[in-house]
Amino acid sequence: MKTGRLEAFSDGVLAIAITIMVLEMKAPDDTSFKALLMITPVFTSYILSFIYLGIYWNNHHHLMQVSQKVNGKILWANLHLLFWLSLIPFTTSWIGENEHYTETLPVFVYGFVLLMCACAYFLLEKALIQYHDDNSELHKLSKRRLKDYASFIIYVIALPLAYINTWLSILCYVLVAIFWLVPDRRLEKAPE
Amino acid sequence: MKTGRLEAFSDGVLAIAITIMVLEMKAPDDTSFKALLMITPVFTSYILSFIYLGIYWNNHHHLMQVSQKVNGKILWANLHLLFWLSLIPFTTSWIGENEHYTETLPVFVYGFVLLMCACAYFLLEKALIQYHDDNSELHKLSKRRLKDYASFIIYVIALPLAYINTWLSILCYVLVAIFWLVPDRRLEKAPE
Amino acid sequence: MKTGRLEAFSDGVLAIAITIMVLEMKAPDDTSFKALLMITPVFTSYILSFIYLGIYWNNHHHLMQVSQKVNGKILWANLHLLFWLSLIPFTTSWIGENEHYTETLPVFVYGFVLLMCACAYFLLEKALIQYHDDNSELHKLSKRRLKDYASFIIYVIALPLAYINTWLSILCYVLVAIFWLVPDRRLEKAPE
Amino acid sequence: MKTGRLEAFSDGVLAIAITIMVLEMKAPDDTSFKALLMITPVFTSYILSFIYLGIYWNNHHHLMQVSQKVNGKILWANLHLLFWLSLIPFTTSWIGENEHYTETLPVFVYGFVLLMCACAYFLLEKALIQYHDDNSELHKLSKRRLKDYASFIIYVIALPLAYINTWLSILCYVLVAIFWLVPDRRLEKAPE
Repeated sequence: MKTGRLEAFSDGVLAIAITIMVLEMKAPDDTSFKALLMITPVFTSYILSFIYLGIYWNNHHHLMQVSQKVNGKILWANLHLLFWLSLIPFTTSWIGENEHYTETLPVFVYGFVLLMCACAYFLLEKALIQYHDDNSELHKLSKRRLKDYASFIIYVIALPLAYINTWLSILCYVLVAIFWLVPDRRLEKAPE
Repeated sequence: MKTGRLEAFSDGVLAIAITIMVLEMKAPDDTSFKALLMITPVFTSYILSFIYLGIYWNNHHHLMQVSQKVNGKILWANLHLLFWLSLIPFTTSWIGENEHYTETLPVFVYGFVLLMCACAYFLLEKALIQYHDDNSELHKLSKRRLKDYASFIIYVIALPLAYINTWLSILCYVLVAIFWLVPDRRLEKAPE
Repeated sequence: MKTGRLEAFSDGVLAIAITIMVLEMKAPDDTSFKALLMITPVFTSYILSFIYLGIYWNNHHHLMQVSQKVNGKILWANLHLLFWLSLIPFTTSWIGENEHYTETLPVFVYGFVLLMCACAYFLLEKALIQYHDDNSELHKLSKRRLKDYASFIIYVIALPLAYINTWLSILCYVLVAIFWLVPDRRLEKAPE
Repeated sequence: MKTGRLEAFSDGVLAIAITIMVLEMKAPDDTSFKALLMITPVFTSYILSFIYLGIYWNNHHHLMQVSQKVNGKILWANLHLLFWLSLIPFTTSWIGENEHYTETLPVFVYGFVLLMCACAYFLLEKALIQYHDDNSELHKLSKRRLKDYASFIIYVIALPLAYINTWLSILCYVLVAIFWLVPDRRLEKAPE
């Protein structure tokens, strides 16, 4: 099987997930500046989630670029990733409901879904590497894991932090996003 | 006609159906753990429906992989399948409204839509086989029907069971899903 | 310019339009059979609109199949068609709000949008024919217009009928749908 | 990297953005002509936003047509553009809430998002030009900037005008739309 349709389907789900979040941003009730400010928390979490989904789309794009074929296992690993990514709009909407981001549970759940997305992506990568014995580019990926491991560790630290101070958790989530946004040229050359 | 655009359109509809279900999962009203638990039934039915739509996408993907051409009849058989699949988010939302899944009608309707999806898929397969006289791979499909027939029988049993105990019906739906999730290597080699 | 991306974009818009209609079918408030019956009008109009959008997708698919290139004018003729098609979910939702379909205005507006879709499709076809001087298949289309003209006439009759009896209008809309659903082999051979 | 998947993803997001706006047009509460008139402002702003998104899709289509490759920077410039375009449904919904378009803030925010879209598109174009040293068609774009600059200037004028008279701002937005709708043959030949 070729990767074409898996890419098309993933593009579809990601495009919808990234766009329906904006549906949660209901138009303010009146036209005052105060009413506009009321949607700031939803808007802020929309930006973060947009960036996260953008990162996943980018990485997925790169991953498929170096892959040539898929099997049933990979299709399901991909659907598993899409499942967790599809929950991001839900958690974004919940986290954005609280004006000051001080409620523990939404921040915790948001981080948990991000962690599960990272795990699902890791599993997809593994399934692809396993299926392409002879693909040197994919195998190189399995050696460059600094960023992946760092993200995992930060998420795992961020989750309990939500019970101490939600802003510390959010800082961790932002940190991971920045981590992946910065072009990874130097990291790629860093020793493992 | 080539299969390309039929695949693209089906991917679009399936990607939307699989993602809009998450829109039914409204963010909890408050940030308590209890409020989060309240969405458990919606979440559980979301998982089952996600897996079902995933199975259909996978099978559709395989079916189109071995097909080369489509005619008007196949286009409509495909739209017929998409119609029933597009009803899954609606039934998922209804079944998820009841905290303990003990209401007969939503469980019955959920199963009925699944049964109609199976029928529609069967008709699509038949239309494809009929149009490809010379395609041995598609014709092989018409001989391996164990899974299809078993699913039909389980659905037909599950529907009246909803009037006795809804959990028995749900068990049947889960059974069929597992049935299709398990790689069918052994089944393929099983004698007919 | 190739037709590829125009097709992809149109597929996207049509797939969304056909699927979001189902969002209007809110899960019934309770689990009684009566509550399920309450959504019958929405469901019935959903079926009709699904078939209409399916017909347009099918015809669009055929039209693009015989076209090789597009220009700016065709892109806008296509967007114009998508605009009217995107209004179908809105009119479907309005027409489905009335349990007995006896209200004039929703039925009138539904028919008006269908008429505008037909006009927009006609304009798109014309723009394509004009741009492909040397395409005999497209030019053949401009000679087989029986169905198009019949549809126009039926729509124009159906609109004022909504002020006499809404069911007569709905009958007209159903008639046109059947008209296009029936394979047009005989019609194609009919003398013009 | 090829442009294929970037186009597919952008098509997806644009198709969803252009279609979900129609979800904001709730079916009127009753079936009177007055109730239908009530949705006129939402409908009018839907038309304008549909045209704007259509223009961006068209231009994006042309831009990608002359590009052959993308890098990480271009992927993010594209996501940045999609972010601002995804906000158009939200601002459309807000601007359409006020029956007479006389409220300053929604009109201001609508124009601000349009300005940011224009900036994001400009950045995407720049990133593409920079990456294609040897692409004469893309480089020609960087010389024909009359329309871009004119649009920027009109937006910048339109924003403060919203505090004087909202209709003047709206006129500016319409003007820019017409500006881009008119085929740019003459402009292309105009001296820079």
